[in-house]
Amino acid sequence: MTKINTTLTKNPKNLPPSDKLGFGQYFTDHMFVAKYREGQGWYDAEILPYSPLALDPAASVFHYGQALFEGMKAFRQDSGEIVFFRPEFNYDRLCEGAARLCLEAPPKELFMEGLKKLVEADERWIPNGPNTSLYIRPTLIGSEGFLGVRPSHETIFFIILSPVGSYYAEGAKPVRIWAEETYLRAAPGGLGAVKAGANYASSLKAALAARQKGYAQVLWLDVEHQGIEEVGTMNVFFVMDKEIVTPALNGSILAGGTRGSVIQYLKSKNLPIVERKITITEVIEKIKSGELKEAFGTGTAAVVSPIGVIHYQGKDWDINKGETGPLSTQIFTEITSIQRGTKADPFNWITKLK
Amino acid sequence: MTKINTTLTKNPKNLPPSDKLGFGQYFTDHMFVAKYREGQGWYDAEILPYSPLALDPAASVFHYGQALFEGMKAFRQDSGEIVFFRPEFNYDRLCEGAARLCLEAPPKELFMEGLKKLVEADERWIPNGPNTSLYIRPTLIGSEGFLGVRPSHETIFFIILSPVGSYYAEGAKPVRIWAEETYLRAAPGGLGAVKAGANYASSLKAALAARQKGYAQVLWLDVEHQGIEEVGTMNVFFVMDKEIVTPALNGSILAGGTRGSVIQYLKSKNLPIVERKITITEVIEKIKSGELKEAFGTGTAAVVSPIGVIHYQGKDWDINKGETGPLSTQIFTEITSIQRGTKADPFNWITKLK
Ligand SMILES: Cc1ncc(COP(=O)(O)O)c(C=O)c1O
Ligand SMILES: Cc1ncc(COP(=O)(O)O)c(C=O)c1O
Repeated sequence: MTKINTTLTKNPKNLPPSDKLGFGQYFTDHMFVAKYREGQGWYDAEILPYSPLALDPAASVFHYGQALFEGMKAFRQDSGEIVFFRPEFNYDRLCEGAARLCLEAPPKELFMEGLKKLVEADERWIPNGPNTSLYIRPTLIGSEGFLGVRPSHETIFFIILSPVGSYYAEGAKPVRIWAEETYLRAAPGGLGAVKAGANYASSLKAALAARQKGYAQVLWLDVEHQGIEEVGTMNVFFVMDKEIVTPALNGSILAGGTRGSVIQYLKSKNLPIVERKITITEVIEKIKSGELKEAFGTGTAAVVSPIGVIHYQGKDWDINKGETGPLSTQIFTEITSIQRGTKADPFNWITKLK
Repeated sequence: MTKINTTLTKNPKNLPPSDKLGFGQYFTDHMFVAKYREGQGWYDAEILPYSPLALDPAASVFHYGQALFEGMKAFRQDSGEIVFFRPEFNYDRLCEGAARLCLEAPPKELFMEGLKKLVEADERWIPNGPNTSLYIRPTLIGSEGFLGVRPSHETIFFIILSPVGSYYAEGAKPVRIWAEETYLRAAPGGLGAVKAGANYASSLKAALAARQKGYAQVLWLDVEHQGIEEVGTMNVFFVMDKEIVTPALNGSILAGGTRGSVIQYLKSKNLPIVERKITITEVIEKIKSGELKEAFGTGTAAVVSPIGVIHYQGKDWDINKGETGPLSTQIFTEITSIQRGTKADPFNWITKLK
């Protein structure tokens, strides 16, 4: 394997207060960087002090959107053990995304070794307060400098780390969401199924507009403005009388790791989880009829984020009177307890650092 | 206006041979960079030696696809005069794109002054051989370092320059194109109407696959795999017996400057140019019936690129026996003659450097 060199910082930063972490505001002392060039393979893999990346102004990430990332977490369990949550899932998804974006994915050992060495170097940064964790951001960018649209022959793979608290300023309070009929996040044949920066570029304006109208997240609909796809940067679940529904992966929805974990957990409890197409019309009908009991988003950052209100075509529709429902609470507690090591891990989700 | 500082290189490069320029392979000695921060405005505007950009690894361009560019040209006319082709068009399109991507567009004077000072500094790089020009790449990227999806509060605006020859290795020979039914470039409500890096990210894989099958470019269809949108990184025109058709701007098509110039030119000649929806089915029908006489792509890089073959659902369909048609030639000659100053400029497309 490509050798990983380590240069530790001479100026370690002060740790931020663990009750004021927020999300993605603080970065640790180090980062992992490795480079790839066609014909040469991976080279210059290193742990080094967190510092700017120097890129040719013609690099394809600046012009042709060759940017892909992952989002995962490490935890400091009560026993003191440092663990990762499903790192292999994130590695696999990175590889799928790299193929779609014509970027080079790092070999698995390089990914895992870089990850472990980096987290070891920044171990003191892993917080242990309630709802805190170390957010991990593996990223692939096209770094070759050229113009004239084609895939870059060079890729940079890097990992940065951020100690985080709750994703939402509001904490776990149910969020108000806006069903979006003007802007589109992704379409079949596009990039929606991979974690490409491109998808987020398209989403920013709608999210900003929703926030200005008082909604924390956008409920993304499909090209026909009917099929429900995702909520903000999360997958979405609807708890109904007879079934729990999450949109089937249709090519424009990102297959979230948390989505997979929630499905696995619900199945293990013999709860009626169904992956199928679900439209905004159906959801509104089932709110009206009282059949919709709960709705929530799922993602690495917030784990479970209950939905209190859906705005659709001029009206606000309350879900579970705007309160967090029992299933949302149960799933959140279950997954976070496994992450923190206070419950057993029957699903093999946990990988130890050492 | 923000003051522009100039630092000239101490190590000017050798000029590349003007008959081997290709496209986007060589960069000039200098670049223009200006920075923006919310609350502070534009600052640190400078002409400096072409060199890597140093960005926080958490910069939003690496994660959330905040990247937008323009493509335009300067020419060395036979009289020795240096001119730009429609720079105001590109400035306006950059502003529209910036609004869509939640990036800050530079003020017009900063754009124009930066452009002129940079081209002046690199004047010796402007080639004058046949079909050569100076390609200009203004670019906007989100540079703030943070994680958690939202627009960057900081923008970097930069311009780089590349002396170019013909866009296609083949020169002006008609290209073979592949009507794409799997991958999508853009969809309504997305970013197709702006020059976001995100659109190109989505297009790379299809373009690569087409090239491997022997087709130079992809013919992009709409979400229904019917409406014709663009060809590669160009707009597209179909010359029929009774009309010349280019797809109407529908929200997912980029409004090319060359497209606008071609429409203006055709109108001035009282030729029946129509902007309307046109499907791949109609095009194939009109090839069969003999009504389709010519087809060509238009863009800054190639100006006019004749289409010789369309591949659709397993069949190659010849257009004009695979030869360049008379209207393609006429338009190419007209526009390039105005650019080179060998014909008068009735449309006011030309802006002098000095
Ligand atoms: C668009 C989008 N959908 C869904 C998710 C959820 O994926 P995961 O559960 O793997 O974090 C994310 C990432 O958090 C996302 O960015
Ligand atoms: C996707 C796309 N469509 C069309 C065009 C043509 O635009 P213009 O004529 O302004 O160069 C371009 C840029 O060259 C492009 O990238």
